[in-house]
Amino acid sequence: MPVGQQQNHHQVPTYPPPESEDEESWLWSQIKAEARRDAESEPALASYLYATILSHPSLARSLSFHLANKLCSSTLLSTLLYDLFLGSLSAQPSVRAATVADLLAARHRDPACSCFSHCLLNYKGFLAVQAHRVAHLLWLQQRQPLALALQSRVADVFAVDIHPAARLGRGLLLDHATGVVIGETAVVGNNVSILHHVTLGGTGKAVGDRHPKIGDGVLIGAGATILGNVRIGEGAKIGAGSVVLIDVPPRTTAVGNPARLVGGKEKPARHE
Amino acid sequence: MPVGQQQNHHQVPTYPPPESEDEESWLWSQIKAEARRDAESEPALASYLYATILSHPSLARSLSFHLANKLCSSTLLSTLLYDLFLGSLSAQPSVRAATVADLLAARHRDPACSCFSHCLLNYKGFLAVQAHRVAHLLWLQQRQPLALALQSRVADVFAVDIHPAARLGRGLLLDHATGVVIGETAVVGNNVSILHHVTLGGTGKAVGDRHPKIGDGVLIGAGATILGNVRIGEGAKIGAGSVVLIDVPPRTTAVGNPARLVGGKEKPARHE
Amino acid sequence: MPVGQQQNHHQVPTYPPPESEDEESWLWSQIKAEARRDAESEPALASYLYATILSHPSLARSLSFHLANKLCSSTLLSTLLYDLFLGSLSAQPSVRAATVADLLAARHRDPACSCFSHCLLNYKGFLAVQAHRVAHLLWLQQRQPLALALQSRVADVFAVDIHPAARLGRGLLLDHATGVVIGETAVVGNNVSILHHVTLGGTGKAVGDRHPKIGDGVLIGAGATILGNVRIGEGAKIGAGSVVLIDVPPRTTAVGNPARLVGGKEKPARHE
Repeated sequence: MPVGQQQNHHQVPTYPPPESEDEESWLWSQIKAEARRDAESEPALASYLYATILSHPSLARSLSFHLANKLCSSTLLSTLLYDLFLGSLSAQPSVRAATVADLLAARHRDPACSCFSHCLLNYKGFLAVQAHRVAHLLWLQQRQPLALALQSRVADVFAVDIHPAARLGRGLLLDHATGVVIGETAVVGNNVSILHHVTLGGTGKAVGDRHPKIGDGVLIGAGATILGNVRIGEGAKIGAGSVVLIDVPPRTTAVGNPARLVGGKEKPARHE
Repeated sequence: MPVGQQQNHHQVPTYPPPESEDEESWLWSQIKAEARRDAESEPALASYLYATILSHPSLARSLSFHLANKLCSSTLLSTLLYDLFLGSLSAQPSVRAATVADLLAARHRDPACSCFSHCLLNYKGFLAVQAHRVAHLLWLQQRQPLALALQSRVADVFAVDIHPAARLGRGLLLDHATGVVIGETAVVGNNVSILHHVTLGGTGKAVGDRHPKIGDGVLIGAGATILGNVRIGEGAKIGAGSVVLIDVPPRTTAVGNPARLVGGKEKPARHE
Repeated sequence: MPVGQQQNHHQVPTYPPPESEDEESWLWSQIKAEARRDAESEPALASYLYATILSHPSLARSLSFHLANKLCSSTLLSTLLYDLFLGSLSAQPSVRAATVADLLAARHRDPACSCFSHCLLNYKGFLAVQAHRVAHLLWLQQRQPLALALQSRVADVFAVDIHPAARLGRGLLLDHATGVVIGETAVVGNNVSILHHVTLGGTGKAVGDRHPKIGDGVLIGAGATILGNVRIGEGAKIGAGSVVLIDVPPRTTAVGNPARLVGGKEKPARHE
């Protein structure tokens, strides 16, 4: 369907972008158009939107500026953080691609997300994940003290605590995000949705590889606690408030405390 | 009972105020008296109390100043926020009346709240709700980008995430408040008490009107998760840690994960 | 085992320190050595590490400076907070000893904690507890308004809400810490580990002494909610996500919502 036609129906830009265009450039042009529209309709936000979006030549610079402002302190200066974020994003196209996938995920999967710039500016789950990607690069470069300082600032500012060694996929949606804790040896696949208060933690009885492994396309409901080196199969759903101490097969739903399997491959489907 | 007599017994001012006085004026005079007493007994707080309370001619100005200071950032200036809060509170007596009802609710229903100024200055649940009321006015005025920016700052600063479209009653107590999430189409009645980590969320399967409707006088315990367009009847009680996916009749208690009804109109009362 | 030998094996300093040395001095010398090493390997952190650790003559001064910077606001100045923290720590060797015990606890009991300076600088649970110890001293000195202002700042900055009247032991580990709520009449023993989202709260039905009493060596899992004036015996374990409304005997495990006893003295051991 032509872009113009769909825009007329929904009053929002289409996504995903046409394959003939560069995805990052397309998304950045959408974000700037949204920011221009909002700056015109809301003069109280104009200088904020100019400083965070419209004055920047790229998504990487806009995001680096915004994160640096959110995470800086009297001892970790915004200039240091800006250089750090921009350096990482500039050097790593795969990190920028993950950012783009996260913005598309919020727009697709969160009914309350009506424009990309809203996610870029306001979603602390999105911002915490972008900061984590940079902290993870620092961790891999043996710059642990800086990676841990960054983790700590994100935990203070966004109440999201992701260990810099944790490995996260792309297309990740951390909705609301307050209280999310993801441990050192956790692995999260692509296109995963994680609600607030979710823990991917250890059982306290193990050292080494002791945190959950989350498959592609998993949905983890608010307040779910997944503990230990368990495997949550692709497309599985974990109910809100569940306490999961066992493997969950692909495309299966687990609910309760302790969690039991209630649908999917292993059990007759009831939730899908 | 005469005011003076009760004061002698409890060392606190009586409430509710005599009906012959204006409630907002009475409350503001109480708050100033408390602040003067505290400034005298604690010189380390004197300039703070002067700046936030004693230098202001009204509760609306004091609250606007305090919220603006708490929520400002390098890009959302405190002067902008102060004008925004004061403009909304000045224009809307019903919002000021809700603030007064919230202060009385904290004093009545929270055993740890011993004076109004403590709630005004220190309770992040109270402050988050007042900021929400202004964000909600902005939302109704089609100023969505500013409303969402305000929601985002409240989520960062207080770890309380209330969508600006959500409709909240008066006499609301958000105790401790960390991690509270209230979705876009949620409605909360009057005189409701909500503990920390409470979610009024969607099930992820619906769009449109997808969040809970909470009746007057409901009590929702810590960590309770209420999902979907369900109705919690007036005077119902939701136990701590419950996961509620069903309607709860008035004056009924629901507990557990998934929640079951354990007392009240539908079942023989056991908890009341 | 000689110190040098163990260092060769683990690349970390040994602990506890030799009994012939003063524990606080030993720990402070370790922290400075870690900070010097990190400042050399990571120039981006050098000025931060110098300002927060290396420029200070003692752990008490370093901690006071760091807390004051984290907790200050436009109305509660860092100089006021620094004087307050340093005054309390200087006057109270038992508070300094509790700080030392908390640092050792994080290093012993948190597998992700690889050096003391990381805990001192980055662990918001550790910092919230140290601020609480000072707030508790203020409370005992009848300086309630200042104690409550401090509690409020800690709740804003770290999302940890500990009433200043609550009594906490030493060797406490608050891991991740987001969302922890500890009520006015709660008592926590020594060497207790508390994960994030844990509530030691009231049932809402009682006034006066209405919060839990936690024995020495208890482990409370993520998201556990313990309500009412119940007693959790020494060495007990409370499972993640449990809702505990009953006494738990010593060395017993409680899990579920509502929690039931599953191992230990009263029931045949299954979890230990």
